[in-house]
Amino acid sequence: METATASRDDSVPGGDLRPALYRIILTRRDVRSQFLPDPLPDAVLSRLLTAAHFAPSVGFMQPWSFIVIHAPEVKARIKMLFEAANSEAAGMFADERAQTYRRLKLEGILESPVNLCITCDRERAGPVVLGRTHNPEMDVYSTVCAVQNLWLAARAEGVGVGWVSILDHGDLRQVLGIPDHVVPVAYLCLGYVSEFLPRPELEAKGWRARLPVDGLVGFDRWQGAAGVGDEPFLAQLRHDQEAAQSADGLDLTRK
Amino acid sequence: METATASRDDSVPGGDLRPALYRIILTRRDVRSQFLPDPLPDAVLSRLLTAAHFAPSVGFMQPWSFIVIHAPEVKARIKMLFEAANSEAAGMFADERAQTYRRLKLEGILESPVNLCITCDRERAGPVVLGRTHNPEMDVYSTVCAVQNLWLAARAEGVGVGWVSILDHGDLRQVLGIPDHVVPVAYLCLGYVSEFLPRPELEAKGWRARLPVDGLVGFDRWQGAAGVGDEPFLAQLRHDQEAAQSADGLDLTRK
Repeated sequence: METATASRDDSVPGGDLRPALYRIILTRRDVRSQFLPDPLPDAVLSRLLTAAHFAPSVGFMQPWSFIVIHAPEVKARIKMLFEAANSEAAGMFADERAQTYRRLKLEGILESPVNLCITCDRERAGPVVLGRTHNPEMDVYSTVCAVQNLWLAARAEGVGVGWVSILDHGDLRQVLGIPDHVVPVAYLCLGYVSEFLPRPELEAKGWRARLPVDGLVGFDRWQGAAGVGDEPFLAQLRHDQEAAQSADGLDLTRK
Repeated sequence: METATASRDDSVPGGDLRPALYRIILTRRDVRSQFLPDPLPDAVLSRLLTAAHFAPSVGFMQPWSFIVIHAPEVKARIKMLFEAANSEAAGMFADERAQTYRRLKLEGILESPVNLCITCDRERAGPVVLGRTHNPEMDVYSTVCAVQNLWLAARAEGVGVGWVSILDHGDLRQVLGIPDHVVPVAYLCLGYVSEFLPRPELEAKGWRARLPVDGLVGFDRWQGAAGVGDEPFLAQLRHDQEAAQSADGLDLTRK
């Protein structure tokens, strides 16, 4: 089928889009400790927000807004919120785990040149939104898609992103003046980095291991068993996960 | 600063990662009508799930699972769930809007060769998860990041993805046997396509317009006014949005 072949080859200016994308996906990191003080140029931040703005959204609702934070006094207040939440969090882990937790650096609020809060306006497109009628959380999901677009674009630009989730969102709303109908979805730290670590920090430091992806797949129902024809697919998945973690990356020649 | 420059140039095998990524982001579509019946090779589906599995996750929780749906009888039941929800949805719009709604094709459940349900296991990493202590929804957000990784990888592979959100998730759980502690996050249709439409379908059909992104930005607080130094940034954003919608795409030479 000619059309299918054409779409598969994706003969676009620049050729095969896959090597760059898989490299970006496999080397993206949540950055906490490697931020450099260099400012983020306007042109780069603008492309990152544009990447976010072209995320999918339910009913083309585009529910996101962006609060760009440069002011040191605002960052300092957010850092205090983090400190409060983080010491509560440390108390929730038992013994050794709590000690390990306290040694982890979990944010770069002050070191990163730009902080960015991405929010979701739940009323942006009126009371009834196409595609959101049965799952009202779809607008928040759309906003997370925007975050991930931005995260990958940042990696492509050589910019690190860290998502700070250890914050009381009630307090965060107060500091940033976010109204009730708007949900703060992500608080991000952005900046150039000294390096992207070879592995996720929590994996490298033994907090938790990478799960075998083939164990997370079911067929035709939740945990549905693999049929005979599904075994080669599961073998392929195991192979791909190994390749993804090696220097070579994914093998793109397999059809 | 040498290190910063090195990370900016991202001198990696294959060179500049940005053109491919921005092209993928700007040409990604929610596909409903252009699916081809060609099967999706195991190798391609395996790479897509690998891309999803290397998404960020709170506390390295990796809360996602994947239900791969090939069975025609399962797709037929899901299609019935869609039909029921969609006719309820149509009734929620007034007059002309309801007529327009009924003319839109909003899913490709039967036409696409593979359906994929991506779920979030809220208990995967035990009762206390690093980074999730103050925002329990972070596990679901991680799962949405996995969906977006897969969506972009699919675009790079020439594969279309459509997110079917017009489903009652209680009914969906029943059909797929999903237990209570697991949340169905996304029900996706996957397959090769005859084309990726030049613009999002809802935009092209006049359902809703693309918002100007510079109107969605605040500084240092919600809707915080732009300072003098922020005006060039907003001008750049307007320029980038225009460029993103033109054939040329984003200008990557600006620093």
